[in-house]
Amino acid sequence: MRADDVPLTPLNFLRRTADVFPDRVGLVEESGDSVTYRELHAHAARLADALRGSGVGSDDRVAVLAPNSLQLLAAHYGVPGAGAVLVALNTRLGPDEYAYILRHSKARVLVVHHLLADAVRSALADQPALQLVVEITDRDPTLPGATAYERWLNAAPAGPGLADPHAEQAPIAVNYTSGTTGKPKGVVYTHRGAYLNALGSAISFGLTAHSVYLWTLPMFHCNGWCYTWAVTAVGARHVGLLRPEPQAVLKALAEQAVTHFCAAPVVLNAIVNDPAARTAVLSHPVRVATGGAPPSPSTISRVRAMGIELTHLYGLTETYGPSLVCEPQDSWSEMDDEALAAAMARQGVRTLTVRDVRVVDAKLADVPSDGRSVGELAVRSNTVMAGYLDDEAATAAAIEDGWLLTGDLAVRHPDGYVQIHDRAKDIIITGGENVSSVEVENVLMSVPGVVDAAVVGRPDDKWGEVPVAFVTLAPGAAVQPDDLVAHVKSRLARFKAPKEIVFGDLPKTSTGKIQKNVLREAARRPR
Amino acid sequence: MRADDVPLTPLNFLRRTADVFPDRVGLVEESGDSVTYRELHAHAARLADALRGSGVGSDDRVAVLAPNSLQLLAAHYGVPGAGAVLVALNTRLGPDEYAYILRHSKARVLVVHHLLADAVRSALADQPALQLVVEITDRDPTLPGATAYERWLNAAPAGPGLADPHAEQAPIAVNYTSGTTGKPKGVVYTHRGAYLNALGSAISFGLTAHSVYLWTLPMFHCNGWCYTWAVTAVGARHVGLLRPEPQAVLKALAEQAVTHFCAAPVVLNAIVNDPAARTAVLSHPVRVATGGAPPSPSTISRVRAMGIELTHLYGLTETYGPSLVCEPQDSWSEMDDEALAAAMARQGVRTLTVRDVRVVDAKLADVPSDGRSVGELAVRSNTVMAGYLDDEAATAAAIEDGWLLTGDLAVRHPDGYVQIHDRAKDIIITGGENVSSVEVENVLMSVPGVVDAAVVGRPDDKWGEVPVAFVTLAPGAAVQPDDLVAHVKSRLARFKAPKEIVFGDLPKTSTGKIQKNVLREAARRPR
Repeated sequence: MRADDVPLTPLNFLRRTADVFPDRVGLVEESGDSVTYRELHAHAARLADALRGSGVGSDDRVAVLAPNSLQLLAAHYGVPGAGAVLVALNTRLGPDEYAYILRHSKARVLVVHHLLADAVRSALADQPALQLVVEITDRDPTLPGATAYERWLNAAPAGPGLADPHAEQAPIAVNYTSGTTGKPKGVVYTHRGAYLNALGSAISFGLTAHSVYLWTLPMFHCNGWCYTWAVTAVGARHVGLLRPEPQAVLKALAEQAVTHFCAAPVVLNAIVNDPAARTAVLSHPVRVATGGAPPSPSTISRVRAMGIELTHLYGLTETYGPSLVCEPQDSWSEMDDEALAAAMARQGVRTLTVRDVRVVDAKLADVPSDGRSVGELAVRSNTVMAGYLDDEAATAAAIEDGWLLTGDLAVRHPDGYVQIHDRAKDIIITGGENVSSVEVENVLMSVPGVVDAAVVGRPDDKWGEVPVAFVTLAPGAAVQPDDLVAHVKSRLARFKAPKEIVFGDLPKTSTGKIQKNVLREAARRPR
Repeated sequence: MRADDVPLTPLNFLRRTADVFPDRVGLVEESGDSVTYRELHAHAARLADALRGSGVGSDDRVAVLAPNSLQLLAAHYGVPGAGAVLVALNTRLGPDEYAYILRHSKARVLVVHHLLADAVRSALADQPALQLVVEITDRDPTLPGATAYERWLNAAPAGPGLADPHAEQAPIAVNYTSGTTGKPKGVVYTHRGAYLNALGSAISFGLTAHSVYLWTLPMFHCNGWCYTWAVTAVGARHVGLLRPEPQAVLKALAEQAVTHFCAAPVVLNAIVNDPAARTAVLSHPVRVATGGAPPSPSTISRVRAMGIELTHLYGLTETYGPSLVCEPQDSWSEMDDEALAAAMARQGVRTLTVRDVRVVDAKLADVPSDGRSVGELAVRSNTVMAGYLDDEAATAAAIEDGWLLTGDLAVRHPDGYVQIHDRAKDIIITGGENVSSVEVENVLMSVPGVVDAAVVGRPDDKWGEVPVAFVTLAPGAAVQPDDLVAHVKSRLARFKAPKEIVFGDLPKTSTGKIQKNVLREAARRPR
């Protein structure tokens, strides 16, 4: 028997940190309550035993619907520690979506935070696989037939606690895509992939045992880009946040001595545009990683003006979160603000644990690295999903010849950096010319007073499509449509300028992505 | 076909860093010559092609005898990149040892630096497997039948360069033990183990893309504790050093802006005791990792007094280098110097990528964590050797029930920290009491003027064994034997005090370990 046949699993991160730093604070919740790593480990071990005691077995799915909390963090260890698979549910879905995901994942257990009980109530009917509903509450559960979480944990027979998976390729989590079109798909992560992505991210983001990580990013989003595991791996401190409101984030940065956080550009934008951000003084270095959509150059400049070091990441649910990182080059320190923001707005190069990324044509051949030739971004990595749960057709469509096809259209610059132009379906074709909606949005975002912008195509008899822009202004901003059109024309080819500007809030998915399908419908409607 | 069946291999570290940071300096040699990462990758790829062109195939061994140089660093990628297995030879062996290792490893190719050609000359006879000798030299090779390195590389037919291993469990290197007794054994490392140890060490040692790593530790020693791969992984800079002379180290620390280095205590001791160390001022943070033997509390104090942050590691060839690390606890910042040095002299806790370490009795049961009960240290990890090359009996003796038995005797303290008392064969038993030679050595080392100390047992009719100390003094130090004996008695149980003190230099192995077997012989001789 060899001594080196050890499965790679993030369970070892919590085991080790609890052994080595038992008294270190592992998590501070927004309430101010905190737990040590010894307590976090004990909580996770009891959860594993409780699941076993409730009949949960190998590869069974366990759904958890909770904000960024002790219970959801513990579930990232307790659920796989019982051999089961975590389905961390998006907290902003509707009852039909919850019903679909519970049914599709065949979840045997659902753990619900009382703040979200009402959202899921009507989804609990007609769930043949669901055998147990547990409610996280200090009072009596309100969901029909539900057990109170603490009572359930305490009543569990003592068992082995966190147990190794039967293989490192065993599933650890299923994350459902937000599905801007079609039904959500269940993306399967493995223990091995999660372990490797966590180690790579810890190195890339510079996490150490003295880091303090703020949970602005939802833990349900790609398991918090695997930082649920990475932060624990290095023995750093998790800081919980129920909702990433700008003022709460700014308060936590200062009061909890936060060193690292992650946020989608839409959240980051709200933070840097908050009046309190102008006077916020950070007494220590802070790094933020952003991704999910490209940050506009103006967002990049404002973050840097606050003294926060920004890392731009790209990833998707199918890649455990980040698979590209915009690594700063030594020579960039000599760039002016505008050039630097343009360089940093690119998605960049493969992360440490990714085997390779390519920009390919329809025959899987590389397009030239000329910054102009558009192809589809493809990824090969231990941190690519094992597949879509119970959906061989969708898996076969997404993975070709060992490469995950992301559906994102990109160019590769001569320096090797990848830049996403658009989702394949978001590109606008006008008069036979491709218009990158992202490019036009970035120009619009650079106008003072513009908080958010989205550009979509509207069918047009003459041009095929024409660009239409939806723009959110800051309160009191006096920006006219003609100003914006003129600004775009001064910076880009004239055919890229929007033919119409519509002011107002932008519709977003539960993960903060702009719903371009909704805007496309709106653009067709006569005004 | 899945997109996530990617073998873990350190080859990906060089590929990625060369892609992402092609113009960054990868290595500065002591001569001042430097190569970029693009050049280092190209060198390694040419080496792989040259090996293939010379008939080297899958799992064939390629031996390299060279100081810390471009060629040896490149061999850590070029040899496995050809599917072959690197045997990095200790530069301080004798001809018989080289002859044995070349024969035992069945090396097909030997690459020799001209500085070491004479040392290996007589070992080349009667090597049936050896088909090619390549000499790294600017002149004509002096070894019989040898080819000049650059000429060989340049003549190689273009090929695939660095190719993935057939499996991540494939061997990447064989490292021969220094063998204080018996023949050297060939310890087999895998691509997977090397990859994981490198990532874990990068996190543990705080390596970033801006780190500068000084090669005081020989690359032939456990492949430089896997830092040959870890430094490249993060895109940091290697700084070469032909010999770790104290003044050369101090010069490099200052002039090359070194941030990290590793050194055995004997080397570290020489550095901190060098007169130049007293006036050395470091303008930037420096971290040193030490291991291979426990640093004495006085060495720890002196390193810290220089403003260098010290990390104490423990490992052995069979664990790819480090498998324990003395993680500092937050509470240690309140300790006084003596208490801190005592805490840091312990070997510590398992490293991030190690599954577990235990201190066990003969039946593999854990001894109590009381700081007193002595057992054998056992390790289970992906970073434990696959086995000894062509030596099933030795492998079976070393690995029991999935645990590597290290042969080191240790206690576990109540805080979980492991402290090595001795190699099993180095413990002294006097009057039925166990005496830890390390404990007595540390007390001797705390006396001003003492540079090095080793304690061994001498057979004794009355007591079974009695302790005898061999001590090296600093030039001009006026320390008397009685002073030392009295000092030990003032700090430890009287039976632990040496019955004799012998002044002089200590015999060391080629890796800097004190040869206690030689001292035991010397202790028996009448004086």
